[in-house]
Amino acid sequence: MPKGRRPPRASPRRGARVPGEIPQLLLLSNSRAADGTYLTWARGEIKAFLGAPRSSVLFIPYAAVPGTRDAFDAYTQRVRTAFDDTGYDLVSVHEAADPVQAVRAAAALVIGGGNTFHLLARLYAAGLLEVITACVRSGTPYIGWSAGSVVACPTISTTNDMPIIAPPSLRALGLVQFQINAHYTDVHPPGHQGETRAERIAEFLRLQPAATVVGLREGSLLHVAGSEVRLWGTGGRIFRAAEPAADWTQRAGVRLQTASGQLSEAGAHNCERSSKARFS
Amino acid sequence: MPKGRRPPRASPRRGARVPGEIPQLLLLSNSRAADGTYLTWARGEIKAFLGAPRSSVLFIPYAAVPGTRDAFDAYTQRVRTAFDDTGYDLVSVHEAADPVQAVRAAAALVIGGGNTFHLLARLYAAGLLEVITACVRSGTPYIGWSAGSVVACPTISTTNDMPIIAPPSLRALGLVQFQINAHYTDVHPPGHQGETRAERIAEFLRLQPAATVVGLREGSLLHVAGSEVRLWGTGGRIFRAAEPAADWTQRAGVRLQTASGQLSEAGAHNCERSSKARFS
Repeated sequence: MPKGRRPPRASPRRGARVPGEIPQLLLLSNSRAADGTYLTWARGEIKAFLGAPRSSVLFIPYAAVPGTRDAFDAYTQRVRTAFDDTGYDLVSVHEAADPVQAVRAAAALVIGGGNTFHLLARLYAAGLLEVITACVRSGTPYIGWSAGSVVACPTISTTNDMPIIAPPSLRALGLVQFQINAHYTDVHPPGHQGETRAERIAEFLRLQPAATVVGLREGSLLHVAGSEVRLWGTGGRIFRAAEPAADWTQRAGVRLQTASGQLSEAGAHNCERSSKARFS
Repeated sequence: MPKGRRPPRASPRRGARVPGEIPQLLLLSNSRAADGTYLTWARGEIKAFLGAPRSSVLFIPYAAVPGTRDAFDAYTQRVRTAFDDTGYDLVSVHEAADPVQAVRAAAALVIGGGNTFHLLARLYAAGLLEVITACVRSGTPYIGWSAGSVVACPTISTTNDMPIIAPPSLRALGLVQFQINAHYTDVHPPGHQGETRAERIAEFLRLQPAATVVGLREGSLLHVAGSEVRLWGTGGRIFRAAEPAADWTQRAGVRLQTASGQLSEAGAHNCERSSKARFS
């Protein structure tokens, strides 16, 4: 992983997809805005990311607790409404007879927030980690927010959530090689003696000194296109073990290592979009 | 686990140990106070809990990240200074040739805060869970704060910490049958879209509807004596799935189920204090 911050470089056209650049991910910090609206703040970015309407965006509602059919139905309905004007039909993996095939057939994948441990445990239980990784690495666009952004990382070790259930491992999708801390904030209640968010991230880096953590503020998202990661919105903060934390603003593109070095791992998993894959 | 709140009952004399009542635990929400002093706020309670000076209080510094000898040395020195005026010598388990024997020989156990996942992973790695449980259930007094209070619970599922390392299981010491959320706060930064602490606890209860969670505010501690749990300090909040959250103040004693029903599990582990055990 590169230790030094790369110099800023020209960003691609805002919201535009870069043909041929894979993987393509849109990783949002949050869904709800301070005014209560749901996914509205990122609607323009989502529409631009998905491009011309195609059928069958697959939603994965596994972060919803307690993981009942009712909970997944309600969550799907909320997100379906929010996606109404993108021109995509949104179907949920919990409605599919064959979840693995549903991932393979999807024009895009959408993983919502909730509890990150619950989400990852369900992905393991459904046997979906490898097929999602394979499809995204071969070109299926991926949208996540909050827990859905954290599971795109190598592990869920930088989640803010309570470990209400134990997944078999903290290892996640590994679609990018950096870690995201969603809902990142510097705010710390006066007098509160619990660790600050930055202190918690620093603890992680003491155990994983080669890692990079992106603290992603609310109202921010990352657009990953191949090896380039572009930030849009209110901003973020980059944490590495060997250097002081630094602000990351919309003006500066930053190169972070995505998962391209690991593409060969995905070879065993057939995906309907694999004709667009660059790897053999 | 009892669903209804028991009526308040007379508390035992403040800080007094109740002879014969086991287990005996002092579970603090935090170590540092808002004014920066370390363990000072609870010094009177700690001294009263430990009673007449005896040698060999055993400190367990495993919550310190990154878990190096230097980190454990520094943590031990800080706590040793804080315990100076209790009349107890504090030795650390990381200095012991045989950690299991050190637990067995201890006049009291002290587990400090830090990262709860790191603490639990180290307890598993050192093979200390069963012997600690056995000794506390047979009468060894236990003092914990923050992560050290959370590991006394059935699981660490109500920690606020980041999962920077994966212990083999979330199952912890089970010295009490309720869960503690340390550093409990109702404060939520305005506009912040991450879950409130109460929402996180509610998520846990949706998966574990029979559980009781005590949100323990900073400057508060629980004194467990047998089956009675007494709160001292600024207060707490009790969360159960089937009823609204309720404040718990110092004026009211509350009966919560401790682990007395499970004493027979500990029978296989010899402990030097076992002559005081009530179980056969």
